[in-house]
Amino acid sequence: MSSLLQKELYINGVRTSVVSSPKSTLAEVLREQLHLTGTKVGCGEGQCGACSVILNGKVVRSCITKMKRVPDKSNITTIEGIGKPGDMHPLQKAWSTHGAAQCGFCSPGFIVSAKGLLDVNDSPTREEVRGWFQEHRNACRCTGYKPLVDAVMAAAEVMRGDAPEDSLEFKMPEDGRIWGSKYPRPTAEAKVTGTLDYGADLGLKMPEDTLHLALVQAEVHHANILGVDTSKAEAMPGVHAVLTAKDVQGKNRIFGLVQSPYHKGDGWERPIINDTKVFQYGDVVAVVCAATYEEACEAAKKVEVHLEPLPAYLSAPEAMAEDAIEIHPGTPNVYFTQPLIKGENTAPIFDRDDVVVAEGNFVTSRQPHMPIEPDVAFAYHDEDGLLHIHSKSIAVHLHGFMIAEGLGLTPDKIAIASNPMGGTFGYKLSPTSEALVGAAVMATGHPCLLRYNYRQQMIYTGKRSPFHISARMAADKKTGRILALEHDYSVDHGPYCEMGSVLTGRGIQFIGAGYDIPSIRGMGRTVCTNHAWGAAFRGFGGVQSVFAGETLVDELAYSLGVDPLEFRYINCYREGSTTPTGATPDVIALPQLLDALRPRYKEACKRTAEASTDEIKKGVGIAVGVYGAGADGVDTAEVFIQYDPDNGVTLGCSWEDHGQGADIGAVGTTHEALLPMKIPADKIRFSWPDSAKQPPAGPAGASRSQVVVGNALKAACKAMLDTLKKPDGTYMTYDEAMAAEKPTRFDGTYSSPGSVCDPETGLGEPFVNCMYTIYMAEVSVEIATGKVKVDKMSCVADLGSINNRLAVDGQIYGCIAQGIGLALSEDFEDVKKHSTMIGGGFPYIESIPDDIEIEYFENNLRDHGPFGASGAGEGPMVNPHMSVLNAIRNACGARIYRLPAIPERVLEALGEVQ
Amino acid sequence: MSSLLQKELYINGVRTSVVSSPKSTLAEVLREQLHLTGTKVGCGEGQCGACSVILNGKVVRSCITKMKRVPDKSNITTIEGIGKPGDMHPLQKAWSTHGAAQCGFCSPGFIVSAKGLLDVNDSPTREEVRGWFQEHRNACRCTGYKPLVDAVMAAAEVMRGDAPEDSLEFKMPEDGRIWGSKYPRPTAEAKVTGTLDYGADLGLKMPEDTLHLALVQAEVHHANILGVDTSKAEAMPGVHAVLTAKDVQGKNRIFGLVQSPYHKGDGWERPIINDTKVFQYGDVVAVVCAATYEEACEAAKKVEVHLEPLPAYLSAPEAMAEDAIEIHPGTPNVYFTQPLIKGENTAPIFDRDDVVVAEGNFVTSRQPHMPIEPDVAFAYHDEDGLLHIHSKSIAVHLHGFMIAEGLGLTPDKIAIASNPMGGTFGYKLSPTSEALVGAAVMATGHPCLLRYNYRQQMIYTGKRSPFHISARMAADKKTGRILALEHDYSVDHGPYCEMGSVLTGRGIQFIGAGYDIPSIRGMGRTVCTNHAWGAAFRGFGGVQSVFAGETLVDELAYSLGVDPLEFRYINCYREGSTTPTGATPDVIALPQLLDALRPRYKEACKRTAEASTDEIKKGVGIAVGVYGAGADGVDTAEVFIQYDPDNGVTLGCSWEDHGQGADIGAVGTTHEALLPMKIPADKIRFSWPDSAKQPPAGPAGASRSQVVVGNALKAACKAMLDTLKKPDGTYMTYDEAMAAEKPTRFDGTYSSPGSVCDPETGLGEPFVNCMYTIYMAEVSVEIATGKVKVDKMSCVADLGSINNRLAVDGQIYGCIAQGIGLALSEDFEDVKKHSTMIGGGFPYIESIPDDIEIEYFENNLRDHGPFGASGAGEGPMVNPHMSVLNAIRNACGARIYRLPAIPERVLEALGEVQ
Repeated sequence: MSSLLQKELYINGVRTSVVSSPKSTLAEVLREQLHLTGTKVGCGEGQCGACSVILNGKVVRSCITKMKRVPDKSNITTIEGIGKPGDMHPLQKAWSTHGAAQCGFCSPGFIVSAKGLLDVNDSPTREEVRGWFQEHRNACRCTGYKPLVDAVMAAAEVMRGDAPEDSLEFKMPEDGRIWGSKYPRPTAEAKVTGTLDYGADLGLKMPEDTLHLALVQAEVHHANILGVDTSKAEAMPGVHAVLTAKDVQGKNRIFGLVQSPYHKGDGWERPIINDTKVFQYGDVVAVVCAATYEEACEAAKKVEVHLEPLPAYLSAPEAMAEDAIEIHPGTPNVYFTQPLIKGENTAPIFDRDDVVVAEGNFVTSRQPHMPIEPDVAFAYHDEDGLLHIHSKSIAVHLHGFMIAEGLGLTPDKIAIASNPMGGTFGYKLSPTSEALVGAAVMATGHPCLLRYNYRQQMIYTGKRSPFHISARMAADKKTGRILALEHDYSVDHGPYCEMGSVLTGRGIQFIGAGYDIPSIRGMGRTVCTNHAWGAAFRGFGGVQSVFAGETLVDELAYSLGVDPLEFRYINCYREGSTTPTGATPDVIALPQLLDALRPRYKEACKRTAEASTDEIKKGVGIAVGVYGAGADGVDTAEVFIQYDPDNGVTLGCSWEDHGQGADIGAVGTTHEALLPMKIPADKIRFSWPDSAKQPPAGPAGASRSQVVVGNALKAACKAMLDTLKKPDGTYMTYDEAMAAEKPTRFDGTYSSPGSVCDPETGLGEPFVNCMYTIYMAEVSVEIATGKVKVDKMSCVADLGSINNRLAVDGQIYGCIAQGIGLALSEDFEDVKKHSTMIGGGFPYIESIPDDIEIEYFENNLRDHGPFGASGAGEGPMVNPHMSVLNAIRNACGARIYRLPAIPERVLEALGEVQ
Repeated sequence: MSSLLQKELYINGVRTSVVSSPKSTLAEVLREQLHLTGTKVGCGEGQCGACSVILNGKVVRSCITKMKRVPDKSNITTIEGIGKPGDMHPLQKAWSTHGAAQCGFCSPGFIVSAKGLLDVNDSPTREEVRGWFQEHRNACRCTGYKPLVDAVMAAAEVMRGDAPEDSLEFKMPEDGRIWGSKYPRPTAEAKVTGTLDYGADLGLKMPEDTLHLALVQAEVHHANILGVDTSKAEAMPGVHAVLTAKDVQGKNRIFGLVQSPYHKGDGWERPIINDTKVFQYGDVVAVVCAATYEEACEAAKKVEVHLEPLPAYLSAPEAMAEDAIEIHPGTPNVYFTQPLIKGENTAPIFDRDDVVVAEGNFVTSRQPHMPIEPDVAFAYHDEDGLLHIHSKSIAVHLHGFMIAEGLGLTPDKIAIASNPMGGTFGYKLSPTSEALVGAAVMATGHPCLLRYNYRQQMIYTGKRSPFHISARMAADKKTGRILALEHDYSVDHGPYCEMGSVLTGRGIQFIGAGYDIPSIRGMGRTVCTNHAWGAAFRGFGGVQSVFAGETLVDELAYSLGVDPLEFRYINCYREGSTTPTGATPDVIALPQLLDALRPRYKEACKRTAEASTDEIKKGVGIAVGVYGAGADGVDTAEVFIQYDPDNGVTLGCSWEDHGQGADIGAVGTTHEALLPMKIPADKIRFSWPDSAKQPPAGPAGASRSQVVVGNALKAACKAMLDTLKKPDGTYMTYDEAMAAEKPTRFDGTYSSPGSVCDPETGLGEPFVNCMYTIYMAEVSVEIATGKVKVDKMSCVADLGSINNRLAVDGQIYGCIAQGIGLALSEDFEDVKKHSTMIGGGFPYIESIPDDIEIEYFENNLRDHGPFGASGAGEGPMVNPHMSVLNAIRNACGARIYRLPAIPERVLEALGEVQ
């Protein structure tokens, strides 16, 4: 029997009558019943604040506010009630102009929360703002929080009348160029007003006959599947179908992008719906398709799965043990290796007396990406029978290719579109939900919608693969020059090979990167395990490599008694240096960066030394980071631009936006490239990626987009300028072009000329455009507890010429936050304990310092960057954690060899010191 | 296989991506997928314009605009994009202050349409505005269109800068009284901004597990039901249940409110779901309950109904024929009679030589109510097991009583709430959809939603019952005094007795009303037929009575050679007169009204005589109308008012609003009654009626609410004033009342002291408060075609003291429009041809004159009216049609005896003249 309640609510000043279940949450009612989709649901368990609304004057998380507890005649303010496009509230304006909306998914919740604060305190201090956000659990994964606090302070000033309203608006530079400016990203207004529809919002707006999917997932790590009985589930109300592997119409596999002949296994080991075996916790064995989400979930509980447990190998060493069975029978658990042989033999160098050696065994963590928005996908057939899949895909063309055969289609029968998304940081290079929802559409004939809850987001998306690294580094006692490096590492890549070989290659490329090391011997291997599959993650392989490399560098400095900064200064790339893979660095950036950092570093050392006590020890750490912008080897993008009747242009460019700023990236680049035509930036129209509408520009990964896609856009713009230039030096209008029978579509392609590293030696020049960053962290270590607090972060960076300051600042702020999380708290080792945001160690605002300084050294030295640009998304991610860990070492002597540096590990390391 | 398309739309300036069926309409996408419910759907077939939106600069009816035809990247403006509460567009403000939103259902469409006009023409003439609305099929059933044109003109003036913005705002009178003012109704802002949720809007906002109902309806008029096979339908996708009569848990009957012992039949003849027989076209034999509306409709097609046809009696005479079988076996087809015996025997009078006699056989039409909003209801159980039904009920307490036993419940287990509704004009005194949706909830355990399409609205709601009247009237040749009246009439009430005896009683009460007729003999009978059931309709019985009465009066004047106005002046109620049922008129209003009309009438006669040509003959007609405000006999209401913590009050009053203005009626009355407390009108809070929340105030019918409920409110206010008055003459604040332990809830009741007419003689004083209106119509008759155009309407009225001018003007304007439709075009005789708005003869703006004059004669003479008020909803409805018909007679001699006066009938009558 239905058991509902009716309430009168005043939502944004408008009376509404709502009938709902008393158990429904306010968020469900607002979003699913009232379609006020500006209120976002992230974690769904009160841990992220994306769903914040003001209920009778108090900021509440609507996802945990049951309707039973919402008083009749309540007043509710949602983001829709705060301001709207064209009529934004000062907070929303400030959010735009301070770059506070990156992926934008948390923005409505933050803005509503900030509104709740300013309603009771019109002059908060920065600390009060931070305290408010901490108290209300407003979580952001992109921005590092500082821009949010900046935005609140600026808005409050305007609201108090202490600053003019137009102080919240972008001022166009006099020369009309937006390149290098703080032009707000084109999607900002929609993001801060809650009018940008993310996947779940679009899902709510799907036709009524859309089926909702619920996944039946294994709760063991490794097992044989004996049988799946769906009969009881099929009889449940609302159920249209319960799919198992047999219902997938193709080979039921997702292709793992294997190309290397050195790869054992063919790349087809990953099921869409698991058939013979469960390979990891959370693997999908059945999918219920029902009229409502609730019905699907109820039915999913009735699916009976019969499993025969197998030994679970939850780390690389376990899976490499002699008695370990093959996880994928027929393929060894170590399925790929990548050696590195650079320069003279290293072993003799380590034996020399005139060297000091640092060494260590390192284990990195299974860092979860923890976007605020859980994964979501929906799909349908169009009138031509094309299967359209809309998801958080950051590789719209590639994903069609990866899943087509598994679904029994050719890639041209699949179109993938990427929805506006609430962060991926790389995990969405895995087309998991895409394949599942596609299979469901094909099996049922209905449009289908698949939404993960946050637990599913944690257990059923890829993670950062742990590296188990043994390494040592030798330096000349006299000169302080690093002479040799040896490393041996095993990559725990989980059960699925996707990108595993590429990731393994990153180890040889980036352990020791930044330093001129003449001799290296190394070996990386990719290991199949039963833990969470390894997925792309910002700073892919760099994070792990730097952990080993920059620890050893730091320790060598201590051993030599040389200041860590100066030791780096001695050894960093200069003219004539080579990278670990023997390539020539694209630019020589590090000496200048270290020079710039030096005075601040000295001050920081003095400051921390003075403030340090026996109880709270303070220290400074620095870490160098180098990372390639672009995929290994040749990397290609195709785009077009379309001249519009109003003399603007629409970009035909599948630059996927996972929050990093594909919109401003593409618009900024095009604006710069079309400067002679003087097309206003707001007439350069970003299009959301859709493989049916745009040519392949490649995935939004590997920090490649600004460089590779940017160059393709530049080429298209050049074609446009060349075609439309008139004898008087001006350019044809659209009408003139039409009259002159000129084309209005202009194609552009670009291929980056890198080379793949040699499979035998590891040598090669995979990246022709790199990012250089140095971080300096100042930390406090509470000696009694092992708790670490980061007090300040500084960053000096050479990312070439900067397209958009807000976007690039935002990348660095975000990397700092994720780096601190990586260093101190984030993990996904325990599938139960770590399967929530809090359990996974998500850094809230109190973990991230408000004191952050960034200095850029801009230049136009990169031949392979459009207008001199490099990437920005990953370089700044590879080393902030390491600056924190080096600062801990500096503060108290504790050296961390296993991530994250949770208090117990710090205490343990402190024990080793004493 | 799903077959969808994806489009990028810019809706109200916000980019949206929409996936929809190419066959879906834009209205479906806007409402059902995007929940932009400001866009209303009325007819669903392009005939009412409620769904108007601006698509790429053009006003379109979104309900017939298929998504396939909506260009990609279209710009769409809906009402939500025009203005919002607190930030209204000038058109919206003007709509409020001109009373242009009554039920408000058409307002968004009209406002969007008007915006489309002003976008291309900022200075339209009134005729251009009217032409635009005609062209775009914007239909209004409440306002008579004039206020809408006024609003557009006023808004345009402000938009052009020719009038100040505040000219669109209500100015509070200096004495602070809103009684008698043009204070905009409290719901106006929500109505004109599209933020008021009507039933279908609330239905869209119901929980996801709500089932959608589809009715399986008979397509014959009369049959035995041999069997209903639901098996194929039950197997259809999404179907939860297919209900037949056996699934209704009670006696499966709706009670017809029979109380009179003279009534044959027990009032329980009406099935909820028909079991043994089909009694009329459209009767429901099964109800499909499915996850989606489309699924329900598809399955409904699969229900197999086996019928044995019976002879269909589609009029009273057919059902009264000797060989006619009993439609309800055991009950004669003539199931109620009401004689009238007043004064001396009439037959001898008609035989006298000194009298002239007018006589005729009259047939009125089965006028359809044609609200713009089709019927809709939804229901659910609450946590206490109470069955809540939300609908267009205008009798929330009574309806529970009427359907409870049929559902197998006691009335206390049912709560009925009335949604904001897009007009009923009385048809919602039938709790049809309420019973069906209640049965579905009880059978399925799910919340259920039932929406009628417009065809269902036409074929499956009650209609105005045709009267077949034979009547004659005699007047003294010398004095011109009416001496006697005889009538005999049969009421074709369709198959269900609901309100049939009351309606039949209206004939004896109102044939000849307004005139002092000493002797009357009459007989009315209620006849069961197989045509559409008779339902309450504004001017209930009065419309039909006036048709006979005012024709005879007019013809007597012509026969006597007395001017029709003067003949009426001679005979109308004066001191000492009696009504047809022998009662004393409550006030003597008519002489004054006729005096006031006389000069205008003379001018009109002159004007039309001069303008008349042989081709287009013009004429003037007048008609007197009298109608009771209140149900027959004792009529009771209970209410309460609740003192609120902010010193406002909330009304605990179930005064149902079908567009007439319950909100302003209740607020205006309360404001006046609480004047000493000086509570601002916007702190007097109207509550939507809900039998679970308020005591019984009785139905919103019989023009009783302002009088009976108004008096109850006045009593509650008096209790409040008495309780809270302080020694210094001021009144306690809420806090003071709480501190003094005074009550904050104040009850009020009122019983109107009328008497029921005697069943044997018809004599009695059923109404102690009446409305008096006289209309004057000026028409043009095209002699060649019989087409009639109404050029001007004038109204003089005594409705006592007027609560709100906008609301009462609106009632008169609306009655004029419905009266013209009744006179000239509206019908529901042919269930196929007449089952659309256009087919049913709906009057669009071109049918209704822009030239309308109203003059009130306000007074405080009615003891039984709160502050002297009478009703306003029905009095003005009983005679406008008759002024038109008398004007036709005046123009060309053609006398119409059967409604409506469609061109063929006018031609026929013209033939009789020649």
